[in-house]
Amino acid sequence: MYATVMHGPGDVRYERVEDPKILKPTDAIIKLAATCICGSDLWSYRGLQKQDVPSHMGHEYCGVVVEVGSDVRTIKPGQFVVGSFCLSDNTCPHCQFGFQSSCQQREFMTGAQAPYARVPLADGTLVATQDIPDASMIPHLLAVSDVLGTGWFGAVAANVREGGTVVVVGDGAVGLMGVMAAQQLGAGRIIAMSRHESRAALAREFGATDIVTERGEDGIGRIMDLTNGVGAESVIEAVGMEQSMQQAMGVCRPGGSIGYVGVPHGVTFDGQQLFFKQQRMLGGPAPVRRFLPDLMDRVLQGKIQPGKVFDQILPIAEVAEGYKAMDERRAIKTMLVVE
Amino acid sequence: MYATVMHGPGDVRYERVEDPKILKPTDAIIKLAATCICGSDLWSYRGLQKQDVPSHMGHEYCGVVVEVGSDVRTIKPGQFVVGSFCLSDNTCPHCQFGFQSSCQQREFMTGAQAPYARVPLADGTLVATQDIPDASMIPHLLAVSDVLGTGWFGAVAANVREGGTVVVVGDGAVGLMGVMAAQQLGAGRIIAMSRHESRAALAREFGATDIVTERGEDGIGRIMDLTNGVGAESVIEAVGMEQSMQQAMGVCRPGGSIGYVGVPHGVTFDGQQLFFKQQRMLGGPAPVRRFLPDLMDRVLQGKIQPGKVFDQILPIAEVAEGYKAMDERRAIKTMLVVE
Repeated sequence: MYATVMHGPGDVRYERVEDPKILKPTDAIIKLAATCICGSDLWSYRGLQKQDVPSHMGHEYCGVVVEVGSDVRTIKPGQFVVGSFCLSDNTCPHCQFGFQSSCQQREFMTGAQAPYARVPLADGTLVATQDIPDASMIPHLLAVSDVLGTGWFGAVAANVREGGTVVVVGDGAVGLMGVMAAQQLGAGRIIAMSRHESRAALAREFGATDIVTERGEDGIGRIMDLTNGVGAESVIEAVGMEQSMQQAMGVCRPGGSIGYVGVPHGVTFDGQQLFFKQQRMLGGPAPVRRFLPDLMDRVLQGKIQPGKVFDQILPIAEVAEGYKAMDERRAIKTMLVVE
Repeated sequence: MYATVMHGPGDVRYERVEDPKILKPTDAIIKLAATCICGSDLWSYRGLQKQDVPSHMGHEYCGVVVEVGSDVRTIKPGQFVVGSFCLSDNTCPHCQFGFQSSCQQREFMTGAQAPYARVPLADGTLVATQDIPDASMIPHLLAVSDVLGTGWFGAVAANVREGGTVVVVGDGAVGLMGVMAAQQLGAGRIIAMSRHESRAALAREFGATDIVTERGEDGIGRIMDLTNGVGAESVIEAVGMEQSMQQAMGVCRPGGSIGYVGVPHGVTFDGQQLFFKQQRMLGGPAPVRRFLPDLMDRVLQGKIQPGKVFDQILPIAEVAEGYKAMDERRAIKTMLVVE
C-alpha cells in the first residue's frame, strides 16, 4: 500500500510501503475510515524534535477491523473502532487507575496516516461502536482518538467544575477541544486566548464566553481584569512553550489547577516560584482510553461535533500539502480522506 | 520585654526589645502560652537564605488575647487562641477558596518567639477555644499553628484517601506530622523514609506502617518493591531539596499526587520530565487557617497529640541553644516555655 513517511524535517512523502500485518497475537489490523495530522507531528516536521527517519507517521485513527491476532478476545473483524494514540492493555494497575497513557505495556501508535494500520494491544486500546456509524460521524469519531481526548484530559486535569471559570491558553486544535470539553463539563465562563479570527470564531462556537487577543503580560492583565483580580480556577495549557506556560501560571488563582497537555519544549519551572503560586499542576499524554466510551457516546448522540476542528480535508495522497498548511498555520487541523 | 532576635547566621539572641503594641485597628496582642522553633528558621540561621537582620523571630504561637484593636470584632481579650503562621483576613476570594496562605492581605507572622506578640488581621487569623485549655494541651495546640497544619496540607495536597498508599519523604517535624495527617485521613499504608532511629520510632507511633532507611535510587527501588512496582498514589515531600524532590517524583505513581510543603531551595523541574511522569503537584505555604478548627477539635478531643514532636523543651531564655540543637539535628523540634 501507500502510506505517509517522514524522511526528515519538511520532507513528508506518500509512498509505497509494506502492508501492515499482525506481528503479535494481541494486534489488530484496521482499515481506516479517515485519519489526520496532529500538531505534535509538526515538532519533527519543523526539526524541533529529533526523530528517527524514515518514520511512518500518524497516530489518530478510526475504522473497521479487518484482522485480529490469536490472543485478541473482545475486538472482532467487521467492528468499527476508535482507539487512543496511546496503546494500552487497559488491565495493568496504571490503566485501572485511569492513566492508560502510562500503561506498563504502553506503546505510541504509529503508521496511521495510511489506508490500513496495525494496532497493538487491540483489546485494551480499541473501543467498538454498536453499529457501523454513518459517514457523517467519521470526522467527529476520528477527533476523539487524540485531539478531543487530549483537550478533554486538559479540562479534567484542570479540575473544570460546574459553573467554574476556565482559561484556555492556545487556540490550536487541542486548545479548541479544551474549550469544548470545558463547555461539556459545565464551566460557567470560558476565556479563550486567541488572536486568529477564524479560530476565535470556532472557540465561540464550542462554548468560549470571552476571547482575549492580547498575549504576555497584557494577556495576563486582561484576564485578571475579567476575573476581578482573582484569576481562573482552571487553566488548560495547550501549547507547551515557555511563554504559554508563563501565561497559564499568570492567570491561575492560588489553589487553582493547570492542566497542561501541550508537550513541553524547553520549559523549566523554578520550584520556589511554583511553590508560592500554589497552583495544582497535572499534565502528560492524555489517557484517552479512559474517556473514549463517554466521548464516543457524546458524538453518536449528536451532543458534540469535534470534527468541526478539521478546517482542511485532503485526499491522503496529498498529505504533504496538509503538513505544509498546518506548518504555515493556513489550517488548524487537516483530515486525510482514505479512498 | 525580652524576645528572640537573629543578628545573622548562627547568631540568635534573647534580648531586650520594645513591647509589642497595636499598630493597626485589626491587630491583637497575645500573651504566649508557648512558642517554638521552626525548621524554616534554620534556613536563615544556616545562612542559606537571605534575611534582613536584626530580625524578630518566631511564627508559631498560641496563647491568651490581652488587647485588641478597635476594628477587631470576633476575637476578645481573655480568649485562648491559636493562629496560623500565615496571617489572613479570611474573607477575600483566596481565603474563601481555602487558600488563606495566599490571602490578598497576606502577611507572615513574626516575633512569636517572645512572651508577647502582635497578631495582625486578628479576626481572620485567630481561632479561639471554648474554654482556656488545660496546660497539658498547650504543646499540641501550639503544634497546630504551623508544623501540624503544614503536614496536614501536605497530606491534603497529596490527595491522601481512605485506604490509600502514602509515602512521606523527610523525617523532620513536618514529615512526622505528615505521617500523622495521613493516618488521620485514613491512609491504609504509610511508608516513612527515615534513617534516624528516634524519628522512625515517632513515625511508627504516628501511624507509619513501613520505614524505609535507604535514600536515592536505593530508596526509590525499595518503595517500588513495597508497592509491587506501582508506586504510591500520594507522596508528601517535606524537605524542599533537589534530592528529596527527586525521591518524591521517583516513588509517585502516574496519576498520583505530590504535596510538597518543604520550601524548595535550588529545586527546578524539567517540563517534559514532569509531563511524562503524569504526577499531580501542589505545594505552597500551608493554608493552616482552613484546617485550624478541625485540627484544634482533634487535639481537644484527645484524638491526636502532635505536641509529641517536641523532643526538646527549653525556657525561652535559652532559645539560642534550641536553634543550635535543631541545627545539629540533636532535636527534631524545640518548644520554648514562656514564664
